[in-house]
Amino acid sequence: MDELDPPATPPARHRYALGVEYDGSEFSGWQRLSKPGEPDLRGEATVQAAVEAAVSFVAGSRVEVVCAGRTDAGVHASGQVVHFDSPVQRDPRGWVLGVTSRLPPSVCVRWCVPVAPDFHARFSARSRRYSYRILNRAVRPALQRQYLSWERRPLDAAAMHRAAQALVGENDFSAFRTVHCQAAHARRDLQEIVVRREGDIVEVQVQANAFLHHMVRNIVGSLLMVGRGEQGEPWIGELLAGRDRTVAGPTAPSAGLVFLGPRYPAQWRLPAEVTL
Amino acid sequence: MDELDPPATPPARHRYALGVEYDGSEFSGWQRLSKPGEPDLRGEATVQAAVEAAVSFVAGSRVEVVCAGRTDAGVHASGQVVHFDSPVQRDPRGWVLGVTSRLPPSVCVRWCVPVAPDFHARFSARSRRYSYRILNRAVRPALQRQYLSWERRPLDAAAMHRAAQALVGENDFSAFRTVHCQAAHARRDLQEIVVRREGDIVEVQVQANAFLHHMVRNIVGSLLMVGRGEQGEPWIGELLAGRDRTVAGPTAPSAGLVFLGPRYPAQWRLPAEVTL
Repeated sequence: MDELDPPATPPARHRYALGVEYDGSEFSGWQRLSKPGEPDLRGEATVQAAVEAAVSFVAGSRVEVVCAGRTDAGVHASGQVVHFDSPVQRDPRGWVLGVTSRLPPSVCVRWCVPVAPDFHARFSARSRRYSYRILNRAVRPALQRQYLSWERRPLDAAAMHRAAQALVGENDFSAFRTVHCQAAHARRDLQEIVVRREGDIVEVQVQANAFLHHMVRNIVGSLLMVGRGEQGEPWIGELLAGRDRTVAGPTAPSAGLVFLGPRYPAQWRLPAEVTL
Repeated sequence: MDELDPPATPPARHRYALGVEYDGSEFSGWQRLSKPGEPDLRGEATVQAAVEAAVSFVAGSRVEVVCAGRTDAGVHASGQVVHFDSPVQRDPRGWVLGVTSRLPPSVCVRWCVPVAPDFHARFSARSRRYSYRILNRAVRPALQRQYLSWERRPLDAAAMHRAAQALVGENDFSAFRTVHCQAAHARRDLQEIVVRREGDIVEVQVQANAFLHHMVRNIVGSLLMVGRGEQGEPWIGELLAGRDRTVAGPTAPSAGLVFLGPRYPAQWRLPAEVTL
């Protein structure tokens, strides 16, 4: 290329944010394992690949999407948020209906908002919230089994709630981090954790600025030991202070976990459900 | 056989009631289409055949079960009740865990109670209750799609509730009965019907002494026309009075329908959730 030639004008890009809902049961997680647009050689279906294929079809060219929070195999999302850059402009309704029509039944787009080019689904998010639901009865679930984990022994949800409060604040969560976690450090600001019972269901809701890999499921696995009376309430705080993953409870199963979604500052003019 | 021989003593039979929960998504309905114990020649899976196979295994001999309310293909149940007669006695916990262990993941037994030999799951029931849930938003459901129907146009749930009150009482429900209904007459006592909205979900709960074939889904199909503003509120009462199935709304899809269960008089000493 001749250095004196003016640079080609880059094509205009239009950034959009999408609210995405999915049933993670049949996916091997959010993150695409292959190169963009290439079939996964391991034959694994990822939510990212499904969303990118649908968005790319509507955009008329290859588009990559960036999400607010990567979810593991079997984990669901009611309010995942992604952004992408498109060479074409479409109205939000066109993106919502067009992309959804190209997605499998287990994924849909709930909303679309055009955003400024410096919005970033991951880095602009100030908090994330998860729900973990446990069916607590003698018999495994049949109805709703895709969305529940199961504990046959009686759980003391009030004890779990009290024990969990030791986690609130900016702490080093090494005790609840998988060995595969790639985060540079383990400090996270856990803003709220609530454990409550409604009939046979015990729900854990937890919100933090961000989460480590397996952090919610590892916290739930340890809270279950308190709920069953195998550990006292102070144990959760002791685990946190010890920063030793090997002594905490096992990782709770994926099916009970739903990513409720991130929250962003009001400046981005996103829907109320994802705005602080 | 010599008439003068004393009759052989019939084997003692022990009657049990079971509470059964199932996800109807992958079943062609409750009712077994083949003879007891024989494979269905049409290759259709029924909940009855699955339950009978599991109960028969635990009983050690062929057992037939009778249910409180037959559900159609794709319809779920959280509180179906069945009874059966067994040549062997087992404790309730043994039935619950043993039968559940022989059932597919979409079916489980929630409780078991030994009952008097004149208890009948169908004829002893005084009422049945159903829930029908509709996701009311622009985009189809991904999460919970197995348990929801979907209406993209805005529904006026309050208008649906008011209109539905015309159905309460002992009435001839011919207008809401499928042509395939085999009931001798169409009079049923509809005891309660409530339509309410919670966020994006519109739920119809309806209770009657008994239901005609497709009666709940046909009522919901007509209420949806009122909810969308295509018919006025008095139309539901007019349909009822006209007794003409051909002018009512279409049958609503099966996925939104859950049989919450029957209720029995206290004399049968069944769990509180199925006792009047």
